[in-house]
Amino acid sequence: MEKSKVHALLKRVREINPLIHNITNIVVANFSANGLLALGASPVMADAVEEVDEMAKSADAVVLNMGTLNRESLEAMIVAGKSANEQGVPVILDPVGVGATSYRTEAASKLINEVKCSIIRGNAAEIANLIGEKWAIKGVDAGNGNGDVFALSMAAAKKLKTVVVVTGKEDIISDGQSTNSVQNGHFILTKVTGTGCLLSAIVGAFAAVENNYLDAATAALVFYGVAAEIAANKTDEQGPGSFQIEFLNQLSLVSSSEIDLYGSFHTK
Amino acid sequence: MEKSKVHALLKRVREINPLIHNITNIVVANFSANGLLALGASPVMADAVEEVDEMAKSADAVVLNMGTLNRESLEAMIVAGKSANEQGVPVILDPVGVGATSYRTEAASKLINEVKCSIIRGNAAEIANLIGEKWAIKGVDAGNGNGDVFALSMAAAKKLKTVVVVTGKEDIISDGQSTNSVQNGHFILTKVTGTGCLLSAIVGAFAAVENNYLDAATAALVFYGVAAEIAANKTDEQGPGSFQIEFLNQLSLVSSSEIDLYGSFHTK
Amino acid sequence: MEKSKVHALLKRVREINPLIHNITNIVVANFSANGLLALGASPVMADAVEEVDEMAKSADAVVLNMGTLNRESLEAMIVAGKSANEQGVPVILDPVGVGATSYRTEAASKLINEVKCSIIRGNAAEIANLIGEKWAIKGVDAGNGNGDVFALSMAAAKKLKTVVVVTGKEDIISDGQSTNSVQNGHFILTKVTGTGCLLSAIVGAFAAVENNYLDAATAALVFYGVAAEIAANKTDEQGPGSFQIEFLNQLSLVSSSEIDLYGSFHTK
Repeated sequence: MEKSKVHALLKRVREINPLIHNITNIVVANFSANGLLALGASPVMADAVEEVDEMAKSADAVVLNMGTLNRESLEAMIVAGKSANEQGVPVILDPVGVGATSYRTEAASKLINEVKCSIIRGNAAEIANLIGEKWAIKGVDAGNGNGDVFALSMAAAKKLKTVVVVTGKEDIISDGQSTNSVQNGHFILTKVTGTGCLLSAIVGAFAAVENNYLDAATAALVFYGVAAEIAANKTDEQGPGSFQIEFLNQLSLVSSSEIDLYGSFHTK
Repeated sequence: MEKSKVHALLKRVREINPLIHNITNIVVANFSANGLLALGASPVMADAVEEVDEMAKSADAVVLNMGTLNRESLEAMIVAGKSANEQGVPVILDPVGVGATSYRTEAASKLINEVKCSIIRGNAAEIANLIGEKWAIKGVDAGNGNGDVFALSMAAAKKLKTVVVVTGKEDIISDGQSTNSVQNGHFILTKVTGTGCLLSAIVGAFAAVENNYLDAATAALVFYGVAAEIAANKTDEQGPGSFQIEFLNQLSLVSSSEIDLYGSFHTK
Repeated sequence: MEKSKVHALLKRVREINPLIHNITNIVVANFSANGLLALGASPVMADAVEEVDEMAKSADAVVLNMGTLNRESLEAMIVAGKSANEQGVPVILDPVGVGATSYRTEAASKLINEVKCSIIRGNAAEIANLIGEKWAIKGVDAGNGNGDVFALSMAAAKKLKTVVVVTGKEDIISDGQSTNSVQNGHFILTKVTGTGCLLSAIVGAFAAVENNYLDAATAALVFYGVAAEIAANKTDEQGPGSFQIEFLNQLSLVSSSEIDLYGSFHTK
């Protein structure tokens, strides 16, 4: 993929304003909606089981986030996911905290058995736990596993027959055959809650306009990482509060020329 | 209505600190509470069906928001609304996303049949769908309907026997006989999630201190729009993150003289 | 307690990054998570009854917040609290709005009967209502009771056999025998929603690294109050939006020397 494709997809998102249906958690719902709006997408957060079938059908992408999962939201995710599958709407799964409790691990299994996901994004611990590999996890954060993230993403993509994104210091995206890496991003993202969740939502916005999901996810990660770098640079040493606000600003401002200047990704 | 009435009501809200009971959604609960606090009102967000009857009774206004509606919250809204009706506490309804799914449309019907609302605030698509008129809707955002918003607000106010606020580029407020328009506000409000929901909550704060609801809603909209204009001006081209924060600042700062300077509304 | 102990505990929190399991409300979940991250703790917000037992066991502290209580979250709090009790994990209770409705008062009774709390933090009205004393309450805010807060905290600590923190203009911490007072903090904290809830979460982070809970709570309050004072000073007259963001910054920045300079607390 060329950088020009990142521009082209970003431009398409900002022109089309795709409708992104999120079933997400009480911690990040506001931040995710504001991040999507800043980018130029249209968020909708409906999660009642009575309406998600209809809402998912009319969306351009559906993002399922397991952050504060419960019986009702799991049921709603399955209904919305199946509805999206029927209509050919891409489904992005963020398996937050899989491996932290057996409830989450079982819920994620159920979800990926019943819903065909286009892209799954998590940290190394979440993705490893999703395919039954051992990896330490602490709460909902990746522990200090020392595995080979390239091999992990490739194995997960093959096993789950989907595009898998493993985010960390370097981000790896694999469809089981090709694998991309993205070097953009910034450490301070780990000091703001919901930056992983928002990234999954933004991957959804790019998947809404590009059905090569390996490219869509890679472009989303480059865009997101560049926005974070610029925001971190502008709020240097002010702290995570200022970063969070400037990051929302940058999601609306990042331009093609900044992506050319700072974007860093490779195909392995 | 004179501008002096806008001052007077704003002053009263800031002096009395009315208690505003919100049953709202996971996306905007924090922003709504912070906006009400900035204005000088006292927010409370209880939504358990076991306690909303008692909470609504002790409130100065009750605001019902359908953003992430489900079975439990709908039941709670009806209980709280009826309790408010019995005590003469004004009820404000924000029918978020009515028309986007049939579940929402039916829930809104049920609500307005069982609860007497003092003021209903929505965008043109939501208000049109509420009274069974056709208007395109995309997710929870107003689509590009081309109807006559003046006629719509008047018709809705007559049919629903309440004050109706239709917000958009120009805001229209009607009680079915008199109709006001407000020219204040700013486009960037559409780039921050929950600005419509917070507006409904702030309409509630003004309705808590003025039982001429046409005046109360008009004053709230002028105040809100002026705060947005000043905030947009101060954060010119910084982006929606900075605007959101400065907007909260301005809700606490806007003064009578700024309302005199920038306030713009008319009676038709 | 010496100021050096405040430093030492703050340093320990920032080194250990304790995992704080919060069962909290839709209004403050995001702000609480961001505040804990800024401090250097690891928040996790799981609240499904199916997993809180397991999550609480693996946490370094459990924080139960009654802000938007309902049947499910009350059940989850009891399960998580009992699980923490079995493992010797400290439990912090924030009885938001106790006394505002009989449902909340009864729920709080049930909670403190079934779960052994290490620290309970509330405003004067909440703590008074918790032990059956009369104190005016308005929504979820402390009313204008005129009682003796020192006597109240001592009485509550004795009756509830726990450390009790009563926050207000001056904060009082008592274990029923010794009582500390903290003079730090700032009025503008009352203009940002969830500052009490976040404080309870941060008390949890300090309790995770110090099992003298009187000291842990006192240190947390001094740290929090100093951060608020610095943030208020830096955003002087800008408004509550700017304060909120700078406060998150300061939670990550406050240093030992600032605690030496501004920290103010006494033992009675």
